[in-house]
Amino acid sequence: MKAAILTVGDEILIGQIVDTNSAWIGTQLNDIGIRVNRTISLADDYTEITEGIRQAINDHDIVFMTGGLGPTKDDITKKAIADYLGVEMYFDQGTFDRIHSIFERMGRTMSPHHHDQCLMPESVHLLRNSMGTAPGMRFEIGDKLLFSMPGVPYEMKTIMTDEIIPYLDRQGYTQDIHHHTILTSCTGETQIENMISDLVDALPDGIKIAYLPGIAAVRVRVSGYGVPQSDVEHHARMITARLGDIVYGEGQSSLPLEILKLATSKRCTVATAESCTGGLIAHKLVSPSGASAYFKGGIVAYSNDIKTQALSVSQSTLDQHGTVSEQTVIEMAKGCLKALESDIAISISGIAGPDGGTEEKPVGTIWICVAREDKQVTKLLKAGKDRLKNMEIASIYAMDMLRRFMIEY
Amino acid sequence: MKAAILTVGDEILIGQIVDTNSAWIGTQLNDIGIRVNRTISLADDYTEITEGIRQAINDHDIVFMTGGLGPTKDDITKKAIADYLGVEMYFDQGTFDRIHSIFERMGRTMSPHHHDQCLMPESVHLLRNSMGTAPGMRFEIGDKLLFSMPGVPYEMKTIMTDEIIPYLDRQGYTQDIHHHTILTSCTGETQIENMISDLVDALPDGIKIAYLPGIAAVRVRVSGYGVPQSDVEHHARMITARLGDIVYGEGQSSLPLEILKLATSKRCTVATAESCTGGLIAHKLVSPSGASAYFKGGIVAYSNDIKTQALSVSQSTLDQHGTVSEQTVIEMAKGCLKALESDIAISISGIAGPDGGTEEKPVGTIWICVAREDKQVTKLLKAGKDRLKNMEIASIYAMDMLRRFMIEY
Repeated sequence: MKAAILTVGDEILIGQIVDTNSAWIGTQLNDIGIRVNRTISLADDYTEITEGIRQAINDHDIVFMTGGLGPTKDDITKKAIADYLGVEMYFDQGTFDRIHSIFERMGRTMSPHHHDQCLMPESVHLLRNSMGTAPGMRFEIGDKLLFSMPGVPYEMKTIMTDEIIPYLDRQGYTQDIHHHTILTSCTGETQIENMISDLVDALPDGIKIAYLPGIAAVRVRVSGYGVPQSDVEHHARMITARLGDIVYGEGQSSLPLEILKLATSKRCTVATAESCTGGLIAHKLVSPSGASAYFKGGIVAYSNDIKTQALSVSQSTLDQHGTVSEQTVIEMAKGCLKALESDIAISISGIAGPDGGTEEKPVGTIWICVAREDKQVTKLLKAGKDRLKNMEIASIYAMDMLRRFMIEY
Repeated sequence: MKAAILTVGDEILIGQIVDTNSAWIGTQLNDIGIRVNRTISLADDYTEITEGIRQAINDHDIVFMTGGLGPTKDDITKKAIADYLGVEMYFDQGTFDRIHSIFERMGRTMSPHHHDQCLMPESVHLLRNSMGTAPGMRFEIGDKLLFSMPGVPYEMKTIMTDEIIPYLDRQGYTQDIHHHTILTSCTGETQIENMISDLVDALPDGIKIAYLPGIAAVRVRVSGYGVPQSDVEHHARMITARLGDIVYGEGQSSLPLEILKLATSKRCTVATAESCTGGLIAHKLVSPSGASAYFKGGIVAYSNDIKTQALSVSQSTLDQHGTVSEQTVIEMAKGCLKALESDIAISISGIAGPDGGTEEKPVGTIWICVAREDKQVTKLLKAGKDRLKNMEIASIYAMDMLRRFMIEY
């Protein structure tokens, strides 16, 4: 079984937008055991599209197209499909009625463009689009399948999730696959591989491991092909146990979400005192809904004035040890506990770069502290030269320290 | 002239990484007038790659490949190219010497993988890669060109910039194109189109407009094809003048960078008081290097306690008008001016969602205030339902208000 993804749109080819649709569809298909052999982006051009469809159908069993169906496009995708199939276009009254009622509800009138959206190639099987006006389409071409969806990501995702994947499942195209994703942070891929190499070597047929690296984070995915889900869970549990405290969660979770859960169960409040990250840690902590239950707020102490005034860092500490030092982040955290009256405080000070480094403290030198009234934990992070990446890495290390601190709270 | 981009790698097809290389190459080629007709991502598979190269070369004049050249790959890309061309591989001593000297400098020893990197298809023209070990490659196939680069983005970008684009320019493949990009914020694409429609209609042959929309920002690109740069600048100036104060900069600038420039010329300091954005505005303001010259810091007043204690918002204001209100953001900004002793303060409070909305104040209701001691400007923003997108939009509106406030400072 070979699949291809075709995306249509000049805006992709000139780099005006990055084609995230293909990546998303690729992930979804990989999850259900359908192998994508090729993705292709085509220009908004009739000849390119017909030729692209022809090649893709020739070489693959299933083709997924996105783009070229919206009201402002020239609808050449539908025309190209109809011509490739050798069928005529017809006016689909059901689609018209649905668009009409949506527009009536919104108090808008339909444009001629929307009228064109109701023209469909004969032999189409329409797929419900609950998020927009252009329906998805399924075509059966001999024993091959062609799906076409609008390019708007949330419309495409809805049609894939509600219509296409269930259809492929019903028709037996999907493999019996189960995944369990283990989320780790602040440990490199090679180190993780070494920690579990004997477990991986001993995995039975049908169970595989994939390492999905991100910034200061690696997801370890355990996948079972044609084996019961309980087997996947069994091996995932063994690997999770071996990886120990570098694992912060599973599946679709995130560090901020795990911190929110921990804060809820431990009933503690948190505040931040940030210098080099400029508010990034606080922003990440409030990214999940419900963070107000434990997150009190923070002080972005970018200038030294604010470190001394708002966080009560002593001038002599700054003079003696420097702004980027263990002593400074300890005083920042202690000052934050008092100023914002939280149970736990996290502080950070570093040289994000690209300027400001010295021989002794090069760019990327970052100190982090997590503290409660009677206890402080500190860490020296040595990151790279890229300013924004340093802030990103530092925020993840800081959140991971906070998570570990809360577990023992 | 038709060009294609081929990217090689299973990690793209299963959606583990998003193919940003194609978008970047597409932008670069579009800038020099080379039209990309198709981008294709291929699996790490010998047959797929040879077939992909064959189709791409058949249908296009220039083909740009990335991926499949690194030391950990199976080097099937090079083998596939050699077989497609019908040539043998040879050991390139120059490449070996270069890798060897890099490794000696770093105190590392070369692995067999790196030895394989020195094997090259005969007839190759090597392209210097100043950022890594695998050189880029150029092949002349009749009157067609095939370029192959490593998939690591910064290596690919270096080879494109230092070697390939200058080569294409020397060989006369590039058009004489000049661009001027006008940066606007907080105004919709349709509104911008209407503001300048008569100017656009009157543009001479060879000068074109493109609208590149982003989140709460639209870039208007004026491009001249085969006309002098001074003509492009002339029309860009007219359009910029017409768009007036919605234009915040040009080219590669950004709102934080323009704010940094304004603060430097006006010699004023800035501080932030954020509730719903949780530190995002402060983080964005410090994203350009040098922000410490004007940015003092901020208070993330996520809980009401911090609004009253650290920012001196009166309890009666919160009780009477609510946390999300014009009165509250005015008091937050005034409190911030005092607490952080800055010349200008910016404050924000809103309902980011997805929960917490009411009939009167639905999700997406966000108040912003910019203030100095004797003057406050406020704005009510009505954003959407997506929590993170609301924070993003709000931060851009807030920075745009700050920019306008500083111009008049």
